[in-house]
Amino acid sequence: MVSIPEWAWEFHGHRCPFMPLGYRMGIIALRELGMERVKDHGAYALPEIGIGHPQTCMADGIQVATGCTYGKLLMERRNYGKIALVLYAPDKGAVRVSVKNDFLDQLGKFEFFAYRKKGIEPSEIPAEIIQPVIDFVLSAPEEAAFKIQRLDDFNFTRPRPSFARNICANCGEAVFERYLKVKDGEHLCIPCAGYEE
Amino acid sequence: MVSIPEWAWEFHGHRCPFMPLGYRMGIIALRELGMERVKDHGAYALPEIGIGHPQTCMADGIQVATGCTYGKLLMERRNYGKIALVLYAPDKGAVRVSVKNDFLDQLGKFEFFAYRKKGIEPSEIPAEIIQPVIDFVLSAPEEAAFKIQRLDDFNFTRPRPSFARNICANCGEAVFERYLKVKDGEHLCIPCAGYEE
Repeated sequence: MVSIPEWAWEFHGHRCPFMPLGYRMGIIALRELGMERVKDHGAYALPEIGIGHPQTCMADGIQVATGCTYGKLLMERRNYGKIALVLYAPDKGAVRVSVKNDFLDQLGKFEFFAYRKKGIEPSEIPAEIIQPVIDFVLSAPEEAAFKIQRLDDFNFTRPRPSFARNICANCGEAVFERYLKVKDGEHLCIPCAGYEE
Repeated sequence: MVSIPEWAWEFHGHRCPFMPLGYRMGIIALRELGMERVKDHGAYALPEIGIGHPQTCMADGIQVATGCTYGKLLMERRNYGKIALVLYAPDKGAVRVSVKNDFLDQLGKFEFFAYRKKGIEPSEIPAEIIQPVIDFVLSAPEEAAFKIQRLDDFNFTRPRPSFARNICANCGEAVFERYLKVKDGEHLCIPCAGYEE
């Protein structure tokens, strides 16, 4: 059985099967690229999840496993609505880890999901209902649950960070220059300019 | 001095001043809305950061403090390039916590940032350079560092999750129905349809 650090549950906030599933995807992806958990920067974890569907909790397991956190700008949804992860390190290439359909079908039979479909939140579901599905996820043979593909020519970039900061002429708050807008010749932040999308 | 759980550093991957700054913003926002850390769902943490600038690490501190994690779809950047957070709970309203300009200026004078501007990653910066700026962040009087505003009529929504899942007719992988596309009459996932943006 794959073990998962106790603080991962604390971070996530509740016990559920998809956080540990994502954790396993992250660990596999690191291994495939021959790299350690990212302390600073240098890799991107791109889960193919979207919004408006369940099972996105996997992204928290991926943050925990890979160190590619949202705060470090190393994680971004792809919005494909798929249960897959691409881990990309510019100097090591990219690997995609997806969850096999059969495994998703087997997982979906656990009683945990009957509770979830009734709208019961994970922290309200009895432990004896949750633990079996977590154990199932953490003990599944890798080849039964995951498809692993090396991706050639994959690319993902972020702009180079700039420390240049300025002040919005209306609210007086600090704004990084990249986000400063011009309105009636004045330099404003996006909300003050009314330029929200 | 505000204390921060040890696992927060482990999650984040390195020691730096902006993760704890975000942690404080999250704790203040929870207190202002009179709520506890979110176990499941029910609140959104919306940091006003963007990309292509530093100090985004604050979002990891916010995830840790509030339980509004990216994986639970409870965190989303606003892309304003500002060092601020809106915490919004539909049943409790919204509060905005921003970092005061003077405090940002004082912070910027610490030697830590001279290292960062030279491109040295936080995990490579000596502890005796990092600890003073972390202590400064965790011990700053709240009113010196933060501006707190209650926001009226704030709104943020996510679509209601649907468990409906289907199979891409090309790659055969599972796709949540919301993300299934139609091409030549077939139901395909976004990458197979070639509909990436």
